Amino acid sequence: MTDDVQAPPESDKRPRHLAGDDVGIVRPREFTHPGPFAFMSGQTIQGFTLRYETYGALNATRDNAVLICHALSGDHHCAGWHSESDAKPGWWNNLIGPGKAVDTRRFFVVCANVLGGCQGSTGPSSADPATSRPYGINFPFVTIRDMVRSQKLLLDHLGVAELHAVLGGSMGGMTSMMFAMEYPHFTRRQIIMASTANESAQAIAFNEVGRQAIMQDPAWNHGDYPRDGGPRVGLAIARMMAHITYLSDAGMDRKFGRRKRDSAGGESYTFDAQFEVESYLRHQGESFINRFDANSYLYITRAIDQFDAASVAGSLEQAFAPVAAESLVVGFTSDWLFPPEQNREIALALLRAGRRASYAELSTDLGHDSFLLESEALYALVRGFLERSEGYVFDFTI
Amino acid sequence: MTDDVQAPPESDKRPRHLAGDDVGIVRPREFTHPGPFAFMSGQTIQGFTLRYETYGALNATRDNAVLICHALSGDHHCAGWHSESDAKPGWWNNLIGPGKAVDTRRFFVVCANVLGGCQGSTGPSSADPATSRPYGINFPFVTIRDMVRSQKLLLDHLGVAELHAVLGGSMGGMTSMMFAMEYPHFTRRQIIMASTANESAQAIAFNEVGRQAIMQDPAWNHGDYPRDGGPRVGLAIARMMAHITYLSDAGMDRKFGRRKRDSAGGESYTFDAQFEVESYLRHQGESFINRFDANSYLYITRAIDQFDAASVAGSLEQAFAPVAAESLVVGFTSDWLFPPEQNREIALALLRAGRRASYAELSTDLGHDSFLLESEALYALVRGFLERSEGYVFDFTI
Repeated sequence: MTDDVQAPPESDKRPRHLAGDDVGIVRPREFTHPGPFAFMSGQTIQGFTLRYETYGALNATRDNAVLICHALSGDHHCAGWHSESDAKPGWWNNLIGPGKAVDTRRFFVVCANVLGGCQGSTGPSSADPATSRPYGINFPFVTIRDMVRSQKLLLDHLGVAELHAVLGGSMGGMTSMMFAMEYPHFTRRQIIMASTANESAQAIAFNEVGRQAIMQDPAWNHGDYPRDGGPRVGLAIARMMAHITYLSDAGMDRKFGRRKRDSAGGESYTFDAQFEVESYLRHQGESFINRFDANSYLYITRAIDQFDAASVAGSLEQAFAPVAAESLVVGFTSDWLFPPEQNREIALALLRAGRRASYAELSTDLGHDSFLLESEALYALVRGFLERSEGYVFDFTI
Repeated sequence: MTDDVQAPPESDKRPRHLAGDDVGIVRPREFTHPGPFAFMSGQTIQGFTLRYETYGALNATRDNAVLICHALSGDHHCAGWHSESDAKPGWWNNLIGPGKAVDTRRFFVVCANVLGGCQGSTGPSSADPATSRPYGINFPFVTIRDMVRSQKLLLDHLGVAELHAVLGGSMGGMTSMMFAMEYPHFTRRQIIMASTANESAQAIAFNEVGRQAIMQDPAWNHGDYPRDGGPRVGLAIARMMAHITYLSDAGMDRKFGRRKRDSAGGESYTFDAQFEVESYLRHQGESFINRFDANSYLYITRAIDQFDAASVAGSLEQAFAPVAAESLVVGFTSDWLFPPEQNREIALALLRAGRRASYAELSTDLGHDSFLLESEALYALVRGFLERSEGYVFDFTI
């Protein structure tokens, strides 16, 4: 099931240390589930498509698959390059590849754009077969569980007998958690990073402001807008604000401080971007609107806000009772969106439920985005957890 | 110079514990400086007006004045009531009044809406005499120092010989700090709360997203909009986001948690406000647009971002060298916008500069807005600092 892999050219822009050990040029694929699919909301669509990538090969016993789950603004392209001219590789290229922490020589790595997304999987920007126009907000409401159930159909299609592991950060950690709860005997290991069993009021509040920025933009038009139009202003504002929550105060001070754009350093009396952090944020907003659909942003943030691992069972401990997977939970000290305590709480609930779980906390100043950082400590944790035999005594503790 | 004070009626909505000890019904006044006023930017206007309130009476030696400095969205109405039907008193009514921490039986309390504001003082929504239309963004850029210089003219007009104290929280702390630096022999005491000598990149970033929400709203129209129109959507978004930064994660969890609006508690598949925190934020945004001018929001946030007490002198210690005032700096543990460390830094720099300064840190879960809280500990600090003789040994330390 693997894609053809080519050696990258010497002259491209990729960081030198990645040149020799990544999965090279990869090609996204599409899986179409032909039958009806019922969402948790009770709504149904007539089939769906997931765009996905795979790296490495499924083994004869079909039990070496590792499912990667992306975060809100991520997608299926988590490793390698789409073309030799790409400026950047997939978003987790530092973690995934031959010889890396998620070793594609050993594991069959799968990553799909989520249902409700906008990078090739069926979502609000897809054409509704009934009207041939984009679903818009007529698309069914999506939950983390819907995302998990659709990805299970993809794994069945790929012939995966059971998951060696499922892993992800932020929303990807929620998806991993839900996979281990929904398919306990299919999921042998899970790694949850920078995530939460349910969001705090503050995290919901930030998502709500983003949704309001989109929905109050007149160009949103109740979700009915052309593919090249829509609430670009509102989406950019939502992204700029969210981006602040992905960083940390200390990390931003290290990266930008109070440096002015004008190297002369004088006070410039203008509402133009004056501080470097301002022009950085404007760039983040502008680049996002060219790659993301505003309705998908509404749907996915709503799914994140609604996610509550404990909700059905009454407590997190009870909710985790069916889980069979061994779990590694990783929190990051500077993450104030899904802070370390919320990650530790997941591991503690797993332990109280009698499951095998470890919690590790890494000191970083990169905030919520720390799960994406280049960190030998993180690589060692992931590699060790994925490669040791099951039942091996956990050598890191809460 | 005091306003007539009437006893409040028994039947109004004010909290019972405030009924007997506040300044009662107060009337705002206006001070107009007739001559030209030059801003730090080099721009000049032909006179300006400050709307202000006073409580208590100036004494014979004209040295019992206490200047209150408001924060970004505050105004001159910091105590008492404008009418018997007011739903709420002035914003610092719990601190200011007869017998309260800022005792109006003893002190002549003055509070003015800042230059550049929109609650009666001259600002971008005022009529430009040259065109008879609102200044809009033709209004000169305002700095904290401009605000301070205009308020000094008001105090001169009121006959104040020297300030017993200047105090404020957040931007009001910056204004206090600048007062003590700009008019060292006029300013005997300062109290700085929940403030900073200069903002971090993160705080600038949040303000910038707010400005972008306003300026990207088509109704902003480069600052040229009718008084009852303008970028209401952008301003509401800016306020909703900023409001999150005034609270704390723990405080929001205590106040809202994940409570749903639908008391049935079931998942409701909608983009309407679903969690209580969402409808609270929407209300905050909507009520703000009816009382605040979007251009003022741009000007005042820019003044806050540009404020850097150390900038002229090279270091904070050198900048504080001319200060003669005794200083009390108060940080709040849950304030993540202007965190305790940034407040402690102000007190430390004052001490290194050889000034008398104390730092107190109060444990709260209300975030940045903690300086507005009802707290006997805060009242005792303020009262003790304002009422003791100068030179009295400071009994609280860093």
